[in-house]
Amino acid sequence: MKGVILSINPDGRVVDLTHGIPAGDIRAGAFALMAGYKFFPAGTIHVAVIDPGVGSARAAIVVETHQYIFIGPDNGVLSFTLKNETIRTVRRIENHALFAGPLSRTFHGRDLFAPVAAHLSTGVPLGKVGPKVSSFVELDFPSVAIRENGMSGEVIYIDAFGNALTNIPESLRRDIPALLHNLTVMLPSRRMVPVRDCYQSVPKGKAVAVFGSTGFLEIAVNGGTAARSLRLKIGSRIWIRSNE
Amino acid sequence: MKGVILSINPDGRVVDLTHGIPAGDIRAGAFALMAGYKFFPAGTIHVAVIDPGVGSARAAIVVETHQYIFIGPDNGVLSFTLKNETIRTVRRIENHALFAGPLSRTFHGRDLFAPVAAHLSTGVPLGKVGPKVSSFVELDFPSVAIRENGMSGEVIYIDAFGNALTNIPESLRRDIPALLHNLTVMLPSRRMVPVRDCYQSVPKGKAVAVFGSTGFLEIAVNGGTAARSLRLKIGSRIWIRSNE
Amino acid sequence: MKGVILSINPDGRVVDLTHGIPAGDIRAGAFALMAGYKFFPAGTIHVAVIDPGVGSARAAIVVETHQYIFIGPDNGVLSFTLKNETIRTVRRIENHALFAGPLSRTFHGRDLFAPVAAHLSTGVPLGKVGPKVSSFVELDFPSVAIRENGMSGEVIYIDAFGNALTNIPESLRRDIPALLHNLTVMLPSRRMVPVRDCYQSVPKGKAVAVFGSTGFLEIAVNGGTAARSLRLKIGSRIWIRSNE
Repeated sequence: MKGVILSINPDGRVVDLTHGIPAGDIRAGAFALMAGYKFFPAGTIHVAVIDPGVGSARAAIVVETHQYIFIGPDNGVLSFTLKNETIRTVRRIENHALFAGPLSRTFHGRDLFAPVAAHLSTGVPLGKVGPKVSSFVELDFPSVAIRENGMSGEVIYIDAFGNALTNIPESLRRDIPALLHNLTVMLPSRRMVPVRDCYQSVPKGKAVAVFGSTGFLEIAVNGGTAARSLRLKIGSRIWIRSNE
Repeated sequence: MKGVILSINPDGRVVDLTHGIPAGDIRAGAFALMAGYKFFPAGTIHVAVIDPGVGSARAAIVVETHQYIFIGPDNGVLSFTLKNETIRTVRRIENHALFAGPLSRTFHGRDLFAPVAAHLSTGVPLGKVGPKVSSFVELDFPSVAIRENGMSGEVIYIDAFGNALTNIPESLRRDIPALLHNLTVMLPSRRMVPVRDCYQSVPKGKAVAVFGSTGFLEIAVNGGTAARSLRLKIGSRIWIRSNE
Repeated sequence: MKGVILSINPDGRVVDLTHGIPAGDIRAGAFALMAGYKFFPAGTIHVAVIDPGVGSARAAIVVETHQYIFIGPDNGVLSFTLKNETIRTVRRIENHALFAGPLSRTFHGRDLFAPVAAHLSTGVPLGKVGPKVSSFVELDFPSVAIRENGMSGEVIYIDAFGNALTNIPESLRRDIPALLHNLTVMLPSRRMVPVRDCYQSVPKGKAVAVFGSTGFLEIAVNGGTAARSLRLKIGSRIWIRSNE
């Protein structure tokens, strides 16, 4: 992909957001993009190729928002991010003149997404990629169930350190003042984990939950690998409540 | 290596082709280079340091072709690629003035290959690296055995998704029209795998073979990891035949 | 981190030194930085974020030396490198105006270290980051015990190939001429490993010790993975002696 991009735009800057998405895991890719995209400069073209359906009938899209352009297969990988963005236009990518030769059956990152991104970076107008469309595939972001004295959520991402990130956003603490202090998380194993302000607020080897850098509550083990040692995986249910 | 390159050529652009070659696997490195090099701009200097013989008597070479320069140990890592290229000159790297200080015993990528590449990128003439030589180490690319109703081949590379790439090139389909349609692959386990046009043409968890983005037939599992679940490894034999 | 850097300095060049440090392993990070930093151009800003104490009271520092600037948490990750450098000033990072928004609890690489590095790269004076301090956390580099006919040391790093790097520096060979020739290493298993000049100086699958590219003695297996097959890990003791 980088070779193709530099062949079209020798001055292009290319940054890898992550190499850590499990193969074909569209939801994990959608989460990683959502967590990282806004730290890039306005004008960045974000290319997200989690594409298990490559070669099938799934469409390829370009989405222009207020500050960015997003490119990827229309399988939902962009959808968590687009919930936070003001969308200007969505277009289906159909103009083969912008591709890098004939499409292979297995790697449209190289043949389609990278070259389209590179052409756009050189000033090719967005309208050249293909027709406007009115919708795109949206994945459900797992919802948080609010209860009288807390809420329940689930693990939605395992990061490179083995921390288990949940769908509980820190913003809820502002909305529900009762949740502000003295929180505890209960894991599926019924183990209780305190919510604290840093990983090292518990002894080495102990579990702790922290509202982390993605804006969501994550479950960690100080100096350890939470997902493995606490047997958490994507989809594991957790319950959070205030002890006040 | 990148620090050395930028010390010599502060404007150099460096792209990692892959971090996924098993340690010391010259054939896997040779395949990855062959599959990827031609997507880079003309003039690219390709540096391939799969170098288990570092510190031994193996030579270091620079090969100039019509569009590119290739640099690496003379152990065959360049040879699959060079079969597809028009070679202009091959030179043995001997000019210590182009090295980054004295050679260490274990990392000529840093001490020799990267600095020579960087010097060439700044305009140092190719003739400065060392004398012309008339040959270089060539690895045998595993040959395909053509039979009356098909062919036999072998697995030559496992990619980052666990797909098992074989030595069966798509070009053979053009040459042998009988092979064009309705193909089946037989694995060493005698399992039969259909040849289809995309990974998702079979149900999730099922095996499928696709002529993929490298130009070779690959064996995959839709949503899975073929090499592990089908017990395929480099060297595994496969048979392909037409059912027509 | 790269997005933040490019948002502040669009012309910044960013190079990853390694992705291979075990999570939270400050000593391994300190060793990798020490082994690699001096191959980068003078003026390079080195950012080292092995930061298990993120969010705790640990300080963040900037160290200016004769040729470089180093940025990281004050947990010792810079200390092996700084032993080899002439230090000009050490400053605690306190100026929130140079941060990328409010600090998260879990990722100061993104929120503090990367943006401070980017601002310095655009010419912001070092004095702006915060007050001078007189000391920083220094980790003990494991010492080599010199004996009559050799020395004892320990494994301090496992590299990406599984080679076990020790704390025995090649410089000792110059200082102790008796150690110059015909050396043997004894492993904890009492296995004897010869010191040779390249990995391939022993048959495939056999163990060998080489004074390697980091300047330290490393234990390898020709074509294999020494740490696993010889059961070496960080902290494993080794003994080295001359057979003359």
